Order: sequence, then structure tokens, then C-alpha cells
Amino acid sequence: MDTGLRHGCELARDAFDRLHAIGNDGRGITRPSYSAAEDQAHALVERIASEHGLLVRRDWAGNLYVTLPGRDRNLPAVMTGSHLDSVPCGGNFDGAAGVLAAVAVLTGWARTGFVPDRDVTLIVTRAEESAWFPVSYIGSKAAFGLLTDADLAARRVDDDESLAEHIRAAGGNPDRKDGPGLLNPAQIDSFVELHIEQGPVLEGTNLPVGLVTGICGSVRYRSIVITGRAAHSGATPRAFRSDAAIAAARLMVALDDLWGHLDATGEVMTLTFGVCRTDANANFSAVAGQVEMSLDMRSRDIALLQRVENDVRRIAAEIADRHGVAVDLGARTSSMPAVMDPALLGQTEELAKSAGLPFCQLPSGAGHDAATFAGQGVPALMIFVRNANGSHNPDESMDFADFAVATGLLEKLLRLRSEGRRA
Amino acid sequence: MDTGLRHGCELARDAFDRLHAIGNDGRGITRPSYSAAEDQAHALVERIASEHGLLVRRDWAGNLYVTLPGRDRNLPAVMTGSHLDSVPCGGNFDGAAGVLAAVAVLTGWARTGFVPDRDVTLIVTRAEESAWFPVSYIGSKAAFGLLTDADLAARRVDDDESLAEHIRAAGGNPDRKDGPGLLNPAQIDSFVELHIEQGPVLEGTNLPVGLVTGICGSVRYRSIVITGRAAHSGATPRAFRSDAAIAAARLMVALDDLWGHLDATGEVMTLTFGVCRTDANANFSAVAGQVEMSLDMRSRDIALLQRVENDVRRIAAEIADRHGVAVDLGARTSSMPAVMDPALLGQTEELAKSAGLPFCQLPSGAGHDAATFAGQGVPALMIFVRNANGSHNPDESMDFADFAVATGLLEKLLRLRSEGRRA
Repeated sequence: MDTGLRHGCELARDAFDRLHAIGNDGRGITRPSYSAAEDQAHALVERIASEHGLLVRRDWAGNLYVTLPGRDRNLPAVMTGSHLDSVPCGGNFDGAAGVLAAVAVLTGWARTGFVPDRDVTLIVTRAEESAWFPVSYIGSKAAFGLLTDADLAARRVDDDESLAEHIRAAGGNPDRKDGPGLLNPAQIDSFVELHIEQGPVLEGTNLPVGLVTGICGSVRYRSIVITGRAAHSGATPRAFRSDAAIAAARLMVALDDLWGHLDATGEVMTLTFGVCRTDANANFSAVAGQVEMSLDMRSRDIALLQRVENDVRRIAAEIADRHGVAVDLGARTSSMPAVMDPALLGQTEELAKSAGLPFCQLPSGAGHDAATFAGQGVPALMIFVRNANGSHNPDESMDFADFAVATGLLEKLLRLRSEGRRA
Repeated sequence: MDTGLRHGCELARDAFDRLHAIGNDGRGITRPSYSAAEDQAHALVERIASEHGLLVRRDWAGNLYVTLPGRDRNLPAVMTGSHLDSVPCGGNFDGAAGVLAAVAVLTGWARTGFVPDRDVTLIVTRAEESAWFPVSYIGSKAAFGLLTDADLAARRVDDDESLAEHIRAAGGNPDRKDGPGLLNPAQIDSFVELHIEQGPVLEGTNLPVGLVTGICGSVRYRSIVITGRAAHSGATPRAFRSDAAIAAARLMVALDDLWGHLDATGEVMTLTFGVCRTDANANFSAVAGQVEMSLDMRSRDIALLQRVENDVRRIAAEIADRHGVAVDLGARTSSMPAVMDPALLGQTEELAKSAGLPFCQLPSGAGHDAATFAGQGVPALMIFVRNANGSHNPDESMDFADFAVATGLLEKLLRLRSEGRRA
């Protein structure tokens, strides 16, 4: 059977090259959410889709939908998709792999004249990377009408313009955020997102693909500010100090010890201080007056996150008291964990086994739009592709052979889900 | 007896105001070593000195000498002085207080026609603040011919130009660094430096002046670089991390614990991490790949500093090993501790007591040019003036009444030392 996949993958390979030029910052890819670069990347996919006779539409938030219409257009649609924005100085595969895998499948099918029993729709979401706005899953939330006015007022970290302004600039219309044109969970059969793995598991176990069992939720304090008192390093005795740097270090060590203890007892989460910076006036001969730091915690276990968050508040208060500093945890953002659909997972396992494809199950520590679909009750699954060097950096490294293997599995799954009627 | 001091202090007060405009950065004083601002500050003092008939000269490094000639110009001179550069965004009194106190004394004496038995010379040193070049006591070392070629090749942190280039730009001549015109320790009777206290002791004990017993030496690692591996915060399990931020925090806490133990057992030093910064690519959703930090250690006990420095190397190696990071301590700079002259201290105590002036003895945690004079065998002393809010910041706050009291004590001491012949 010609699935059109060989041609589809060649087209995807060429599209990866073209995408690489969009938002290339000299070292990596910087394609901010709702930037001209994200617009261009969306336009590239739209152009390819139109050239292959696929249906395209955009919603109020600028999400792009590419559909191969099914025989019965009233049946719940099979959906797939991912995003095309990137973190600052990220790589070319995070997000794009899932979009272009779906492009490979749909253009391949269109080329061979395959008509599914129901619509198969690729959604190219906007603004998945929460490096730009302090809001998770902007595009997929918008698609379901889940964005709040507060979300729309959030400002992008680099230009301080609101999400609403950015949506307008991208041709969208925030006044239509409550519909019409929103996705209806009852009208979606399933959602499958292919994505590069962002950690080291597949590389370490020498497997080309992984099937995701669940997506971590997160609790984030992006800007914790510890304020002590700047003072001469030589002239200020220990007892007279309010040292913001030492207080920050003790907070980090106390929470890292806590995480170490949980990890050793099998409670799975991550706890990361990605940013820690003394203020601009800091110098080697002064006690640090102020430190700004971030805290990012993730787990599939929401109760665990809540427990640790209570510990964070308690320990921060203790350190503030003991070191004579103020600890302001600042704004908190969070996202809910999501469980992938067991039936969809089982079907995909069967397809992989039948194809002789080695795989493993693994959780996703990173967040993905699939979590939004799962949260709306849509059966959701993610397929991870092996990727060296992690993601969110210019050294992301996905082997194209692995991409083709994973896209082959995606094609089988979308084909299976698009066949016939179901209860 | 009219010492001329009332007029001298009025002149100094006016000069403080004029200095405040030189290097004012809007928030504090930024008067870099060998900058146009430092030149202007030196020119202001030179103009005042010349207007009062005092002798002025400059040496090869641009240090300014202001002399009231004595009856016998062959006798070892009494010297006093301080500096006019500042740290970035510092205050208006650090350094300037000692210069203007001496200006007050010498112009007052000139006004009343007082002729001392021997020369009394104010040295206004260059480049005392080592925030700009990684070399301590540049001006006073230059005055004695102690600067090395390596010192002259050191580059200023803000413009990356060498010390030699900066000396030339200020009208000096590095080719004459070995003389003639250098200070000869045998021809100096004593050196007294008045300075604001940079710590909280006088403020805390409600005393206007302090007499300094010794000056701390220092060991500094200005740019320790800890290199781990950036990785996705959610997708990278604990065991797979090489977290530069956590390694930095553990180094800070381990050394702060060590200091706490020493402090509790009466071994006096300071240990400060003034700067700690994750790299520019750091963000909340990535494990930190690199951290740069500074370490500044000071004590009057050189053996203690050496012992702790060994501990720093051992602990850094242990942390590198345990956390899978590289710890590069980078370049090391240091300065020697100095003991103030007991006879000079005793004389000053007597003068203070006779004047009914309350005072205390205290060490100087900060380094000062007086340490260079002491290192050359010149009897040296420092008089500290009460100052709120520490130094090296825009909030330095010296009460002018305290300045006048301390300047009065300086006048008495310089007068006493300038009288008659001694063995």
C-alpha cells in the first residue's frame, strides 16, 4: 500500500530546512510566540497545505487548522498537531517535528487520493512556549475558549505588549474569544501529538520512539526576589549582614535536599532553579543586596506538587527570618497534569509491535498542548522521537530516520482512528 | 591658638559639594580609576592647594602631592592622604574624606602662617578602588615603585584598556615607574589616613571616631566559573543533571558554614560572594548550564586566609566531582594584611583623651593605601569617621560635625609629628 509517506517525509525534510531560516538568530532558533517569525512559519505550513488541496482555516487566536475532509464530515474528527514558536535561542525541532510529521501524513494521503472516513485535522497552535508570556498552552486553550481576560492582559517578556495586542497584530480578534469557531470536545475523536523527547531517556535506552503515559503539571515562581542589605564585604562582620546571596543559596540547597529525599523515596517530580542573579550593582567587594531567582516544579502528581509548595513557603519564611532578608515569591503560575488515554496508548503499542518497532513508555516532564486536549476530556496521546542534547537549546539533534519511523507510526494511528464509525 | 581649622573645614565642605558633581551618575558617584572624572577631582584639589601657596607635584603614575614645606626640608616628612576614585555607583565620602581633611589642615595652616619643623605632605593617590583593575593599592604601590609589568598590563574592567595606557592618558609615564621621584620609606616619618568607616561599628557604638589597629589582607577569586550542562527543567530527571546553579549554591553554603564555624571560635575574617549570576541564556525552564560568581576573603590573619583558601580548593573539587560540573576558580588576586604602628596609635589615643573625644579601637576590614605604607616599614595609622549605611553605595552618610571632629584630631596628630627632630 502506498501511504504517500515517503513523499510526505521528503517534503517535511525540505520544510525543516526552510523553517530553519525563520527565526535563525545566528546560534539557534528564536521564534517568539506571536512574532513575525511565528507568522512566517504558520504561513509556510498553510502554503504547503493549500498546494496539496487540504482545507485551511484560522481561529480568533491565529491557530491554523489543516484538514483532509472525511467521507462523513459530521463524525468527530481525528486531530493531531503541535506548535511552531520556540524558546529564545532554542532548536529547530521542538514543536516543528509534530507539525511537519502531520504535514507529511496529510500531504502524503492527499497525494495518493486517500479519503478517510472522518476529518483528520492538523492544528498548528500558537504560543506553546511559556518563555514569552506567563501563561501555559495559550494556543490550545484559545482553541477551546479557555483563555481568561487576565490571560489576554499578560505581557510578553521581551516587548511588554499584551497577549491581546499580539493576537490582533497576528490578524486574530480577541473579541471573538468565546466563539463561534471554537473546538468542541464532543466533536473530537482523539488528539495525537508527535514531539521530540526533551530529556535523555530514548537516547540512553537506544530507542527511536517513546509513548507518553502522562504530562507533568507545573508550579512556577518565575521571579522570586530576595532582598537583603548591600554592605562592604570587608567592613561588615558576619553578625551585621543581611546577605541576599547566602539566603538564596540556602533556599536552593534546602529545596534541592528536599527534592533529593523525595526522589530517593520514589516520589517523581523535578525542581529547578534555572535563573539566579545578584542585581546589576553587585560587585565582588560588597555583600549582595538583592537576588532574583526562578523556581520551576513539575510532576504528574498534583498532590505532591501541592505538598512541596507548602514546604517552599515554610522554608522561604524560615530563611527570611534567620538571615534578616525579605523573600518575595512573586507571581505564581501553574498548569495541571494530564493522563494520556489508555485505550489510545494500547492501540499505538499494538501498531508499534506489529511493525516490529522497538519503543518504551515514558512520562513527559515538559508540558504540551496535548495536556489541554486531555483536560477537555479528549482521548490524547503523545509520541516522542529520540533527540540528543535535550531541547530548548540550539543543539537539539533529531535523526531524520527516527523522524520517519515515528511519522510512520503516527500515520498508522491516525489512519486507524479515522476508519469507520465508533460508539 | 588659631589652627585655621574652622576655615579649612568650611573650605572642605564646599569642596565636598564640588566633588559631588564630578562623576555623579544620577544615583551615586561613579569616578573610575584613571578616568576623566578622577582627573577632574585631582585638578580640583591641585587648584585649591595652589591658591593657598602649597607646593604641588605629580609622580609618574599621576599621584598628586601637596606639601606645606617645613623649616628643615631634609627631615623625614609627615604624610597623610587618601584617594578620589570611587566604586561604580558609590558615595561621595569614601576616599574624599581623607583627602579633604588633609586639605582642611594644610590650607588652614597656610592661612595662619604656621610653618612646621618638617615637610607635611598630602598624597592624593590614584586608583585605590580595585573594582576597576584587578590590582590592589595601585597608586600607593606606584609611589614606592612596587608596580610590576604584569600590574601595568592589567586591564580596566569597563573599557579593557591597560593600566599603562590609562596612566599615559592621565599624563603619567609608565617608563619612569622605577624612578626618579619615587617615595623613599626612610624619608617618611609617618603616614596617617583619615577615612569614613565602611562598616557599622561606630554608628552602633555611637562614637564619632575610631582608631584603626590593623588592615585586613585579602584573597580574591573575582570570577569563579561553574560549568554544568543546560537541560530542559521538566524532562531531565535528577540523576541526569549537571546543575551549575545547585553546585554554586552548595559551594556558597559549604563555605559560609565554614566561615560560621570559624567566626564562632573567634577566628576573625570575612567571606563574601558578592556576585552570583547564571549565564545570559538562563531561563526558568532550563537547568542552569553556567554560573559565574565572586569570592572575597579578608582577614588580618594571613595564616587563617591561607588555611581557608586550601579549604576552598578542596570543597570546590568535591562539589565538582559530586555534581558533575567543572569549577574553575579563575584568576586570584591578593593583598597583605598590615599592622598599624603602636606608637602612633598611642600618641593619637593621648591626643583624643586630652581633647575629651570619645573613641574606640577597631580593625579595618576594607583595604587602604595605609597598608602599602605600613608594608614599606613606614609607621602608619588610620582614623575612621562615623558613617551610616556602609560605603561603596550612594547612601554613604557622614555627618559633617563628625568630619570636623576627626579632622581636628588629624590636625593635632600631624602637628605633633611635624614638631622638632627625632631619632
